Amino acid sequence: MGKFMGENFLLRNETAVSLYHNYAKEMPIIDYHCHLSPKEIYENKRFKNITEIWLYGDHYKWRAMRANGIPEEKITGNASDYEKFMAWAQTVPMTIGNPLYSWVHLELQRFFGIYDILNENTAPAIWEKANSLLQGEGFGARDLIVKSNVKVVCTTDDPIDNLEFHRLLKEEGETRVSVVPGFRPDKALGINRDDFPSYVEKLEQAANVSIKGYEDFLTALETSVQFFHSAGCRISDHALDSMVYEETSLDEITEIFADRLTGAKIPLEAEKKFRTYTLIYLGKLYAELDWAMQFHINAARNNNTKMFKQLGPDTGYDSINDDQIAKPLCSTLDALERENKLPKTILYSLNPNDNHVIASVINSFQNGETPGKIQFGTAWWFNDTKDGMLEQMKALSNVALFSRFIGMLTDSRSFLSYTRHEYFRRLVCNLIGEWVENGEYPEDMETLGRIVQGISYFNAKDYFNFQEVDDVNLQKVK
Amino acid sequence: MGKFMGENFLLRNETAVSLYHNYAKEMPIIDYHCHLSPKEIYENKRFKNITEIWLYGDHYKWRAMRANGIPEEKITGNASDYEKFMAWAQTVPMTIGNPLYSWVHLELQRFFGIYDILNENTAPAIWEKANSLLQGEGFGARDLIVKSNVKVVCTTDDPIDNLEFHRLLKEEGETRVSVVPGFRPDKALGINRDDFPSYVEKLEQAANVSIKGYEDFLTALETSVQFFHSAGCRISDHALDSMVYEETSLDEITEIFADRLTGAKIPLEAEKKFRTYTLIYLGKLYAELDWAMQFHINAARNNNTKMFKQLGPDTGYDSINDDQIAKPLCSTLDALERENKLPKTILYSLNPNDNHVIASVINSFQNGETPGKIQFGTAWWFNDTKDGMLEQMKALSNVALFSRFIGMLTDSRSFLSYTRHEYFRRLVCNLIGEWVENGEYPEDMETLGRIVQGISYFNAKDYFNFQEVDDVNLQKVK
Amino acid sequence: MGKFMGENFLLRNETAVSLYHNYAKEMPIIDYHCHLSPKEIYENKRFKNITEIWLYGDHYKWRAMRANGIPEEKITGNASDYEKFMAWAQTVPMTIGNPLYSWVHLELQRFFGIYDILNENTAPAIWEKANSLLQGEGFGARDLIVKSNVKVVCTTDDPIDNLEFHRLLKEEGETRVSVVPGFRPDKALGINRDDFPSYVEKLEQAANVSIKGYEDFLTALETSVQFFHSAGCRISDHALDSMVYEETSLDEITEIFADRLTGAKIPLEAEKKFRTYTLIYLGKLYAELDWAMQFHINAARNNNTKMFKQLGPDTGYDSINDDQIAKPLCSTLDALERENKLPKTILYSLNPNDNHVIASVINSFQNGETPGKIQFGTAWWFNDTKDGMLEQMKALSNVALFSRFIGMLTDSRSFLSYTRHEYFRRLVCNLIGEWVENGEYPEDMETLGRIVQGISYFNAKDYFNFQEVDDVNLQKVK
Repeated sequence: MGKFMGENFLLRNETAVSLYHNYAKEMPIIDYHCHLSPKEIYENKRFKNITEIWLYGDHYKWRAMRANGIPEEKITGNASDYEKFMAWAQTVPMTIGNPLYSWVHLELQRFFGIYDILNENTAPAIWEKANSLLQGEGFGARDLIVKSNVKVVCTTDDPIDNLEFHRLLKEEGETRVSVVPGFRPDKALGINRDDFPSYVEKLEQAANVSIKGYEDFLTALETSVQFFHSAGCRISDHALDSMVYEETSLDEITEIFADRLTGAKIPLEAEKKFRTYTLIYLGKLYAELDWAMQFHINAARNNNTKMFKQLGPDTGYDSINDDQIAKPLCSTLDALERENKLPKTILYSLNPNDNHVIASVINSFQNGETPGKIQFGTAWWFNDTKDGMLEQMKALSNVALFSRFIGMLTDSRSFLSYTRHEYFRRLVCNLIGEWVENGEYPEDMETLGRIVQGISYFNAKDYFNFQEVDDVNLQKVK
Repeated sequence: MGKFMGENFLLRNETAVSLYHNYAKEMPIIDYHCHLSPKEIYENKRFKNITEIWLYGDHYKWRAMRANGIPEEKITGNASDYEKFMAWAQTVPMTIGNPLYSWVHLELQRFFGIYDILNENTAPAIWEKANSLLQGEGFGARDLIVKSNVKVVCTTDDPIDNLEFHRLLKEEGETRVSVVPGFRPDKALGINRDDFPSYVEKLEQAANVSIKGYEDFLTALETSVQFFHSAGCRISDHALDSMVYEETSLDEITEIFADRLTGAKIPLEAEKKFRTYTLIYLGKLYAELDWAMQFHINAARNNNTKMFKQLGPDTGYDSINDDQIAKPLCSTLDALERENKLPKTILYSLNPNDNHVIASVINSFQNGETPGKIQFGTAWWFNDTKDGMLEQMKALSNVALFSRFIGMLTDSRSFLSYTRHEYFRRLVCNLIGEWVENGEYPEDMETLGRIVQGISYFNAKDYFNFQEVDDVNLQKVK
Repeated sequence: MGKFMGENFLLRNETAVSLYHNYAKEMPIIDYHCHLSPKEIYENKRFKNITEIWLYGDHYKWRAMRANGIPEEKITGNASDYEKFMAWAQTVPMTIGNPLYSWVHLELQRFFGIYDILNENTAPAIWEKANSLLQGEGFGARDLIVKSNVKVVCTTDDPIDNLEFHRLLKEEGETRVSVVPGFRPDKALGINRDDFPSYVEKLEQAANVSIKGYEDFLTALETSVQFFHSAGCRISDHALDSMVYEETSLDEITEIFADRLTGAKIPLEAEKKFRTYTLIYLGKLYAELDWAMQFHINAARNNNTKMFKQLGPDTGYDSINDDQIAKPLCSTLDALERENKLPKTILYSLNPNDNHVIASVINSFQNGETPGKIQFGTAWWFNDTKDGMLEQMKALSNVALFSRFIGMLTDSRSFLSYTRHEYFRRLVCNLIGEWVENGEYPEDMETLGRIVQGISYFNAKDYFNFQEVDDVNLQKVK
């Protein structure tokens, strides 16, 4: 029997053990997509107790607690931090089979040196020990990032953001980790959002472009893109909950945009056209600047109106959507490729049924220049599990080139989530180890080690153009 | 090599062996959804031979026989029972990899003490031995249920049913097993069924409510719900072959209902509105009575018109449908939740592609009161297989709380199907055992035992409000 | 650790080893669906070097090379054959986890006796050795087929084809392998293809039927079917990228057909009706002649317009589509079954999400005459992988009868692809072996051997009516 989360956790064969410890473990991290706060990184924010760092804002844990029958009072309500921690501790043993169980103990082990099992009985002592450590040195937000061997952090930022903290970090001369913005113009594409007209006004001010019509709107977006670029941004992100593609023209969109600014919502068909045209316009900009473009597809958000009114978005009331994606996804990529303006692209779907569609679609748009130019992004959100990652990796390897995979990111709001890279790398090594032990690939540790290091770090480093990483100038370890 | 269906069948690690034999095996059964005949239970129906108990009405076996090239004559036709049994015996070895192979031998072992392998050669002796046992004591329908340690049986009944046999069973004072009705108003929601107008008349009589319009129809349904409640019903069931949601109003439905009663079928859009409104109306009633509501989604029924005309429904000509479900499912649950009238809900889809959608949707509607209030129901029908169960359990554990799962039911028309609970529990123990052996969960047998007992029995017991089970007053074994 | 692709490659238990070596290995091959050139078979085409036989026209390898960052020049461009081979050799180690890695080495081992690992370092020597062998005896196209123990090859041919090389092969009296045509009328169903009007003219000439309207068109198709039948064809194939079914009438289609011949494209709805009516007409013909009918569903083709213009179709720019299939598929089969004109049918989908739909749909149309009359075809194209095959086999066995599966085909353009049958058979034996070792099926080697031989060869032999195979008159071994 494997020891509970021991040294060889998830490494079930000798090849995997060797690959992980000799090649994967020491690799730095490029966290090219997360939701960390640049302000908190800049200020090296301290946490008053483990509830703050673990439970404030972590809707993964909230969901589990609700399913376990914990009242909202002890989740997002007015209960004390200690009560909330105890409610969480009581829930932890019930998360058997869920990645939370592994995450919790990995974080306790790696950041706090706590090797106890968290449950109601052990919780009081863990509360004391963790809180005491959090008051000491090395537990600020930025400390935790640096301790995790992270070389680049890409945050997620709105086009109207002034990127003040990214600037301050740069000015400060932080050399251990680059913190760069990620361009996420969801509000700009959300033409039927209630706040779209006011958003356009904010964009006008942020970009210092007078927006009289759709072309001005595009100009303002381009200004923002250029501003982000100057701040080190090399990546964009789009939450395309449902993937759409509708042929249209500039004239038509100009009219749709003008209609919307008069105040009324526009029909679904017009919305699809607006999203299509604007996304393709942005895609071309990204291509010109050699950015990577991310699509996050098939999320169903804010399903529970009652709780949305009470708690707002991103509070644990989202789920997997099941829209068809193959045709609109191909059409979008094709529209860009036809003009030789398809940027590097990373595709994620929240629905694991899309795995094989995506793994096969990427191959239709590889260009023989950038290896793995079009990427099937790592298992996202509800798929960020042992089985979900394995399914993503199997689909990718069966249908495309696993060896060119740019690997893991955190997509997290928590400074403790970097242990998920360890979890991911252990799975990568175990999968490859199984192929070797199964006689499907020779026991050529040099080539295998190169592949493991690629997926852990170098593929992402080579894929993105993060200047600061170049400055850090890491050597490929052998 | 594991012995064929030996003591440790499906238990591939030591933890699993220990969990199954020490915790799961002795747990009683709550069969909260099945298609057994309350009349046959009441009358303790006897079976003249193994063909009657095994092959009359079992469309799982019929499908396998047809695929094996057995002529219909020997399946549902005029061949003798012996010929039918021999045709089945000839088919059994060809069901390799299909759950039928395991079910057949589990049933032979557990009910008949027959440990032979069924095939053409062994069939004559098995025919003799099984038939002889069937003539003896303990092989009546109710005997088989009691022998299987079943504490509650929920049948599936139409709102117009008079529940006579449930009443008789209660009057008789049967204390070993409670037989309660399940409310299945599919015909009431099937507004475009040929027999809808005549069904409304029958409902009028059954509920003793004059149905002049839609509101009367709802009143009649409510009367039926109350009648079922008084008979011990605590669960409803809806076969929503395709999941729909269309905003509408009482006025609109009143008109649609009136139109339909004039005789003509109504357009698809109107049908969807009728189904939406009526389902939500019923959902509120269920919530008020603290019933559990079941949705069975994505079945395609009666695909083969020729055979439907010959044999009718439920004869083996159904398959998996692939409608999108995420949006209408969320909208339906949300509509109820907005009014604080979402009942406990159990979601099943016949399409395993829906596993992750469902596992994530349930989390959007947990309320922190009832643990696991919204359930992802156990692998249904074509998924009632080793792989299908495993996929359901993996999706559930990865995305939600497996530990709060209310577990197995039979959904069967056969009195011998209770061995499927054994099959299910072995898989549960094996999966959990793998997590432990893999170092993903500590070897804490007390907690693990509690989880196994919960999924086997206590979660369902705590979840439902079956009065009779409370009377039986079982203690949690340790 | 298993030796790299050793004798027991993919056979991970003793039962599997025994089944493969004693039952599967020596079975002949019926390749009932491939894209080999009858001309090249007839002429026993020779290959000037390994690049020609391996890389000319193999879009599987091209895709991998593009994803690996190889420029098009070295894939389909003007680079020398040696440069192309080296670019491929450089890519091979990066295909870890992809079936290409196994295929490459299986082909090197079985056809060339080369047991080296292909990579940049070993490539020059392998280039020399393979090319030298290709110049010698036994490396013509037909030699390779015969060497692979192939008894029947079904090519893929258009209704207007004159089947000259099939005729020549027959006249020549080739007795080692039958080469028969497969009827693939995609262009006849593609009413909105640009070349449809000119195709109708070609069909007119080929069938020697004057096509004045739709009924003449059907007559011409029937003439072609009869001609194919006389040439030994017993199978048709339809690339139904998306599955459609629309009720219509002969009058309506007559009008649609006439409209299209005037030059203009027709609306989508009309196209669906045309496809439905014509497919059902053909299905009835197939049934009358006892042909098998194949549907290939859910491919998205020619996604990359830029590359399509440059390289044409079938060059590696296709992917998996995600259309819903359950309803139109059932309706199509039902329409034929209602008239007792449903032929033997083999269903393939490129989207593995369709596995369970298909595995369940086939059971709705089995007729108790031909065992396994309606087949779930083997894992197709992007699913032709270890995991893809396993998923297909698990869906088939869980929901239907695996034992009646007609098994593998190549679907290939390459004369070296026959080793994929070995790969498939090893997986079949391993899966069955696991069931036995897991205690789910008794260790009855005679029955198991019969099932393995069935899936490897005899099920296909019994299923199809290829006359020539009957002449070869193979005996069931064991």
